[in-house]
Amino acid sequence: MHSFEDLSKLFAQRFSADHFPAEPRSLYDPNRSFLQLGGKRIRPVLCLMGNELFEEITEETWQLAIAVELFHNFTLIHDDIMDQAPLRRGLPTVHAQHGVNTAILAGDVMLIRAYEYLNKIGSPRLSPVLHLFNQTAREVCEGQQLDMDFESQDQVSLDQYLRMIELKTSVLLAASLQTGAMLGGATQRNQEKIYEFGRKLGLAFQVQDDYLDAFGDPEKFGKQVGGDILANKKTFLLIHALETADSQQRNQLEELLNTSPSDKVQQVLNLYKQTGVDAWAISLKQRFLQESLQALDDIAVLTNRKQPLIELAQYLIQREQ
Amino acid sequence: MHSFEDLSKLFAQRFSADHFPAEPRSLYDPNRSFLQLGGKRIRPVLCLMGNELFEEITEETWQLAIAVELFHNFTLIHDDIMDQAPLRRGLPTVHAQHGVNTAILAGDVMLIRAYEYLNKIGSPRLSPVLHLFNQTAREVCEGQQLDMDFESQDQVSLDQYLRMIELKTSVLLAASLQTGAMLGGATQRNQEKIYEFGRKLGLAFQVQDDYLDAFGDPEKFGKQVGGDILANKKTFLLIHALETADSQQRNQLEELLNTSPSDKVQQVLNLYKQTGVDAWAISLKQRFLQESLQALDDIAVLTNRKQPLIELAQYLIQREQ
Repeated sequence: MHSFEDLSKLFAQRFSADHFPAEPRSLYDPNRSFLQLGGKRIRPVLCLMGNELFEEITEETWQLAIAVELFHNFTLIHDDIMDQAPLRRGLPTVHAQHGVNTAILAGDVMLIRAYEYLNKIGSPRLSPVLHLFNQTAREVCEGQQLDMDFESQDQVSLDQYLRMIELKTSVLLAASLQTGAMLGGATQRNQEKIYEFGRKLGLAFQVQDDYLDAFGDPEKFGKQVGGDILANKKTFLLIHALETADSQQRNQLEELLNTSPSDKVQQVLNLYKQTGVDAWAISLKQRFLQESLQALDDIAVLTNRKQPLIELAQYLIQREQ
Repeated sequence: MHSFEDLSKLFAQRFSADHFPAEPRSLYDPNRSFLQLGGKRIRPVLCLMGNELFEEITEETWQLAIAVELFHNFTLIHDDIMDQAPLRRGLPTVHAQHGVNTAILAGDVMLIRAYEYLNKIGSPRLSPVLHLFNQTAREVCEGQQLDMDFESQDQVSLDQYLRMIELKTSVLLAASLQTGAMLGGATQRNQEKIYEFGRKLGLAFQVQDDYLDAFGDPEKFGKQVGGDILANKKTFLLIHALETADSQQRNQLEELLNTSPSDKVQQVLNLYKQTGVDAWAISLKQRFLQESLQALDDIAVLTNRKQPLIELAQYLIQREQ
């Protein structure tokens, strides 16, 4: 058994190989550079962990892990265009450096390369893996579209937001684990449980992310605290605050959304505390984390095989708040 | 055996089904509308014809044909963004109607749907079909990138242009035929020959397209004659004219490229005739057509099974010029 850190290092070694043809360099060099920006490589490591929960990591799972990481990077390149993001990890995004047209094509070809790696999985295992991968890829696009739709939508319900987060973030974590488990020979029931573990863990992580953006310690969080508030981003906190506020609080919140006083962040945080969404968010995160760990409990393998996944969940979801 | 027209009608019936989930409509409705714009559906019919050259059309080949047509439409949606094209078939393009962001995502999800249809092919046939499909998809992206690169490049050689056309246009025609042939149980050698037939036919077609844009009968051609000349588009004709012109002719041509006199089209056409590129283009087209038909000749099946493909080649490549 390997820890997340071990697998992360092993994967980084494998992934540092060149994944693209030499020519045309105008198409492939942007992708090469983009992959060198690094990242935590969470999704491919989840493939490996999903596999190792059931048996020793197979060569095919390494290929799957590369495919999943290439897919994730395809979504980043295209999302950066849509978000008009100038920087990623402090360096220019593909479209900022090479233009939107090349960034569209570079993303397309990154996605196609992912399928080339997937096709290294032999039959009869290929088809079920491809099935879940395709479904998940489509869902991630649906999540991105919903996220864009929400920006111009007056009202977004908590259920709609949850569904968007599930599609945009959770399903890929869940499918990474499940496809790894498939290649480890997991039963259908165990596959469903490991998917559920990933899905709920993703939701817990997003609640935490929204919470930390508002209430996090600026030194630990790594991004500007209050960024979501300044951007009027619809988050778990804002959506729930609007749903539970009394009419006076709702009026105050809506006025703050329409104006930008210099103490906007502080005023919105005060309203979040008055409406109790800070405590609510922590309890929601804990609920998703518990449901996630329950699904892991329900998997029929020796308990000690589950230890790396439990540690990963605890690492991703800090309990201190 | 079916003719191209028969198969085209049969495919249109199949393809008129809905290929997308109901929700989110903001993502899938643009794709639904785009597919309704129609088209000649040449590529999926080539899958069917490649299959029927060797045996009766199988259900899997119908699924492959849908995948290939979805892939082709993915490239159209993304190419339209890159070309900033406002219209396709007289109606607004996806990005013109729904914005670039939705058009990027709509194209992405169209590509992913193509892979969902491919995955209806059973093992062990899936993997080799997926292999050629992936390689071809990547090559089509490479061709599009080269085409964009050429716009800002001073000199493009005939070999470079040929390679770009091969990647952007020919390989998909060739791979449509070959993947269909694979599902028809063709031998490796016969698969290579049918691929070559499609590849050379694509080149002949593009030479003809470039020729007709300059010398075609405006009533028959269907687009504005001289459009490539007005846009300074690097075509077979312009590239070969620049390569074979004497220094005086080359100076005249380069001056015409840098200016836009009202009789630019006529002046460039005169230079094309002086340098003999009109006759050269016709002989080049004939050479590619002959090589294409030779590859078809070399396929080891009964001659009468080849008749629909011969008729298709004759229909696509008119002999009258």
